[in-house]
Amino acid sequence: MDDIEIEAARQTRLVVEGADDVVSEESLRGKIRRSLESARPLRIKMGIDPTSPDIHLGHMVVYRMIRRFQDLGHTAVLIIGDYTARIGDPTGRNSERPPLDAERVNENAERYCEQIFKVVDRERVEIRRQSEWFDGFDLQKTVNTLSRFSVAQLLAHETFRKRLDSGDRLSVHELLYPILQAYDSVEIAADVEFGGSDQRFNCLCGRDLQRQAGMEPQVVITMPLLAGTDGLKMSKSKGNHIAVLSTAAEKVGRVMSLPDAQLPDFITYASSWTGSVRESRLASLSAGSGNPRDLKLALALDIASIYHPREEAEAGVASFVSQFTNHELPSDIPEWFLPAGSLAIDRLMKEAGLAPSLAEARRLIVQGGVSVDGERVSDWSSVVRPGLVKVGKRRYLRVVEALR
Amino acid sequence: MDDIEIEAARQTRLVVEGADDVVSEESLRGKIRRSLESARPLRIKMGIDPTSPDIHLGHMVVYRMIRRFQDLGHTAVLIIGDYTARIGDPTGRNSERPPLDAERVNENAERYCEQIFKVVDRERVEIRRQSEWFDGFDLQKTVNTLSRFSVAQLLAHETFRKRLDSGDRLSVHELLYPILQAYDSVEIAADVEFGGSDQRFNCLCGRDLQRQAGMEPQVVITMPLLAGTDGLKMSKSKGNHIAVLSTAAEKVGRVMSLPDAQLPDFITYASSWTGSVRESRLASLSAGSGNPRDLKLALALDIASIYHPREEAEAGVASFVSQFTNHELPSDIPEWFLPAGSLAIDRLMKEAGLAPSLAEARRLIVQGGVSVDGERVSDWSSVVRPGLVKVGKRRYLRVVEALR
Repeated sequence: MDDIEIEAARQTRLVVEGADDVVSEESLRGKIRRSLESARPLRIKMGIDPTSPDIHLGHMVVYRMIRRFQDLGHTAVLIIGDYTARIGDPTGRNSERPPLDAERVNENAERYCEQIFKVVDRERVEIRRQSEWFDGFDLQKTVNTLSRFSVAQLLAHETFRKRLDSGDRLSVHELLYPILQAYDSVEIAADVEFGGSDQRFNCLCGRDLQRQAGMEPQVVITMPLLAGTDGLKMSKSKGNHIAVLSTAAEKVGRVMSLPDAQLPDFITYASSWTGSVRESRLASLSAGSGNPRDLKLALALDIASIYHPREEAEAGVASFVSQFTNHELPSDIPEWFLPAGSLAIDRLMKEAGLAPSLAEARRLIVQGGVSVDGERVSDWSSVVRPGLVKVGKRRYLRVVEALR
Repeated sequence: MDDIEIEAARQTRLVVEGADDVVSEESLRGKIRRSLESARPLRIKMGIDPTSPDIHLGHMVVYRMIRRFQDLGHTAVLIIGDYTARIGDPTGRNSERPPLDAERVNENAERYCEQIFKVVDRERVEIRRQSEWFDGFDLQKTVNTLSRFSVAQLLAHETFRKRLDSGDRLSVHELLYPILQAYDSVEIAADVEFGGSDQRFNCLCGRDLQRQAGMEPQVVITMPLLAGTDGLKMSKSKGNHIAVLSTAAEKVGRVMSLPDAQLPDFITYASSWTGSVRESRLASLSAGSGNPRDLKLALALDIASIYHPREEAEAGVASFVSQFTNHELPSDIPEWFLPAGSLAIDRLMKEAGLAPSLAEARRLIVQGGVSVDGERVSDWSSVVRPGLVKVGKRRYLRVVEALR
């Protein structure tokens, strides 16, 4: 192997680390090798969906890998999905989503970018919008593009199949979602597309369309979906997520509330730890050596540091330690399942027996005697999230998400 | 009932005569009544498909009904399907059709119109092209229109369902065919759409889209499919059709070759006979009274007269009679099944034993001793169609389509 071969193999190893699936590693190595030979950076596709601008650590798994590509000298091409936003990604959804208007799309895209730029290097990003090419898409061009796909192929997509089989409405325009996303790959001449494992179908459609356009198909790298604090798929609607826009203290509290079984995934997909540091921590975790609580604190500090200045992250950890470690927590904290819908903290306290009445609950809150995950509650109408509720000096309640 | 009610009922009766299905007769009567009250003609949609410009009497069933509407004072709106032509009507097809370029579409549309104007009154037609509205269809508008239909609804269409179930390729763009056709109804504000019974699905989609656009949905009238000379659905590709562009003599020959069981349908859907004339002929046919051969000759003359000057039609009949009636045909004419693909007449003669060699077959043809359905064959390379081949004075062969 010559030097270029060795470097290509090294880069490949780095960017597929932890991947669920790569189609295919061999063609990725070939692309990287030719990129090195010709000194032409690869174009790494990165879509953002401006319908849901509040993202969480689950979304960041992919963006962290894109940052790796950037650090190796490649170009991230960020596509603002302003057209697909008007359709709404049907993946994993049981009903249509209302399309967004253009102004809202712009606001959301900006908000989204601010969050991913905590990980993605904004200096090495080419920003594109789907409207650049789809604004000029007349019916003839749409028809031509749709003709590249068969109905059977699209209905093989689990999301579509499930909706059809269960009798939930699947509108014809939703079939366009993966096709338009695929066309993006043609338009920006993507070499690589990353996606969560639930985006595999959409990413592979891009390969098909590129091949039919006479291009070398993009490499598709899918990453596992990060589970949330309850072990289920991380999702804002489930309340089990760690939001990028949460405070450092909130991130620390949420990481500390992770079940131990989740730690390896968070170390692999959410921390900044790499190489031997990571290996040794994963090893000590699986061997049961060392104190898992110390490891968790270190992980919480590391993750918070990715998104916040180091001192904020450290303050978050310190505050957590002073509240939860130094005061002995009782071992028999009762659990309380959140009902469907939203519930205010005062009502929770009354219903869960932490206060005899709404009035008394509010009095306790106003006096500063109520906290959730170490943060004092000041507004009695604030909505309860899963976490550790503390009332006065000694009364605790662990609020958990009900399984639905 | 007032006069207008009576007239509305009369018109309704006339235009649904022989229909397979009407959705719905009551709303049709209402539309006609309001049209009479306001002296505003109804708009009768009439699509032409410029992918297949050579049409036959099966196609004319619908155009003859449209003529009835014209004669009642209503407006026929002829839509040249220059966009759907680029998709290709998937109805009843097992594979995609190659799309046509614009120039070819224009040529075909002109050729198509020349044929239907033998029945449709060209002075009372508003001619439109789909490109008038679809040229301005951007992706956003396409997405909005597609969102009006569910995948389940489209897959309920027998044509689509069959293709999917049998594993034949159904491309995504083919799903657009009924939707675009439906949109035409919105654009021209159609009051009534006629179609063959195999077009029922497409026509009903138009109702859906009009309703969603806040319009009163069009009335859909479907007509039965006319069977060909072999009793199967009339189709150029099956060779069992009576082409509009065939000569008067050919039409006479083809009508005379119809099985007796087909005569009532041809009287009802292909002749100019109406009212009591038609009733009495249908009655004598079912009663077995009168000479069926005379009735057939009268029918052949009538049908040929619709498409040709009366004298040509009469000459066609005369020639048929002189060749087939006056010379006694042997009762034991052998049948010969056409093989797949095309076959030249000289080769047929050799293979069927009508000539000992190709050279002898050609000599007979050049000498004028060979005819098909009473028409002399002058070119030995002409392709054989089903019909009665006569060689010399006494040798006959009935060429029939092989069932596939």
